[in-house]
Amino acid sequence: MSTTVPHPTRIVEVRRSLLKANDLRARELRRRFEHAGVRVISLVSSPGSGKTELLEILLTRLTAAGAPAAALVGDLATDNDAARLARSGAPVRQINTGSLCHLEARMIEDGIAGWDLDQLDVLFIENVGNLVCPSAYDLGEAERWVLLSVTEGEDKPLKYPTIFNTADLAVITKLDLAAATGCDLDRLRANIAAVRPGMATVEVSARTGAGLASLLERTRAAA
Amino acid sequence: MSTTVPHPTRIVEVRRSLLKANDLRARELRRRFEHAGVRVISLVSSPGSGKTELLEILLTRLTAAGAPAAALVGDLATDNDAARLARSGAPVRQINTGSLCHLEARMIEDGIAGWDLDQLDVLFIENVGNLVCPSAYDLGEAERWVLLSVTEGEDKPLKYPTIFNTADLAVITKLDLAAATGCDLDRLRANIAAVRPGMATVEVSARTGAGLASLLERTRAAA
Repeated sequence: MSTTVPHPTRIVEVRRSLLKANDLRARELRRRFEHAGVRVISLVSSPGSGKTELLEILLTRLTAAGAPAAALVGDLATDNDAARLARSGAPVRQINTGSLCHLEARMIEDGIAGWDLDQLDVLFIENVGNLVCPSAYDLGEAERWVLLSVTEGEDKPLKYPTIFNTADLAVITKLDLAAATGCDLDRLRANIAAVRPGMATVEVSARTGAGLASLLERTRAAA
Repeated sequence: MSTTVPHPTRIVEVRRSLLKANDLRARELRRRFEHAGVRVISLVSSPGSGKTELLEILLTRLTAAGAPAAALVGDLATDNDAARLARSGAPVRQINTGSLCHLEARMIEDGIAGWDLDQLDVLFIENVGNLVCPSAYDLGEAERWVLLSVTEGEDKPLKYPTIFNTADLAVITKLDLAAATGCDLDRLRANIAAVRPGMATVEVSARTGAGLASLLERTRAAA
């Protein structure tokens, strides 16, 4: 960022203190989550990659299986996602960021206020749709999943390498549309491997159900 | 942004001076573009909405029609887009932003260095794929187009209102996939109108060619 501003030193300094404050909060959150035995998974992706749709399925199945799960969902505006996810029966809270392009640890602290973490197995955090900025902010999660739909083009891992490098799992979504969009899955897989050799990847379709069992297993095994 | 930091006043101050410096540069750029008679159109959208594919078609058709056009393309990493767009025969330059999530006027200044603006009718600027941050940065463009593909869900205008409010035209892309993705076009149109009543909208498909003539006409009429 230092080349973009009239006073680079000052900006970098302020940004560092910002990130440091966030990191301290995230570390404290992580400690609380571990102490309560709740597994926290954050989801990052472009807008429209299918985070909410996937989350609705996971919450519904976990709830039905007697595994208490909850979710915090971030958006600049609207509480559409929270309303949609609440249909799963799980506790869900919306975080509106206004003009801010990412979630920060402070918002997670506020978001879980009043929730009994001891009663939860899994907590999902759905970040604002953005393939760039969320990568820099630790939210205290145990695992970060980056979602990428087959409609977005095979080159996205190469163009947005940072977010793949800060995530623990790549989830390729909307698998049912691969043929219609002409997505070359082998190339997409190769591009993920190019920016992050050996990265764990799961391929899913919310429509056909493909891959959901293994994703659910990963969630529950981790919990 | 003020609620997210330990020293809100200081951050807001730095951010304002940043934006002000950018605005001054953008104003100067706009003056240069107008003086040279070059129409500058910037494209913003999520990653994978089809900016580059659309741009390749527009550049190819403009070049074939004897209307000199050029493009600057922004990405965090890779020069894939520039290489792809160069096939059109038009002058194209890649801007790599590193970890920065948007283009700034300063980068446009550098990007056009050495180009004879008097020889151009149209200059396209393809921003980094991001529906949030680019909205705050004036690039000296005459017109800003926000692209949204039918695969991203009808709710995106409601969730990312700022970018729609700073754009002059909404371009709905990948129209050919509307049926396969189950996109409710009426709802999408209504959501655009809800955040920006009366917003000009063009619906296109790079595959079938639908809508491209009217988009091209808008480009050339404007030039």
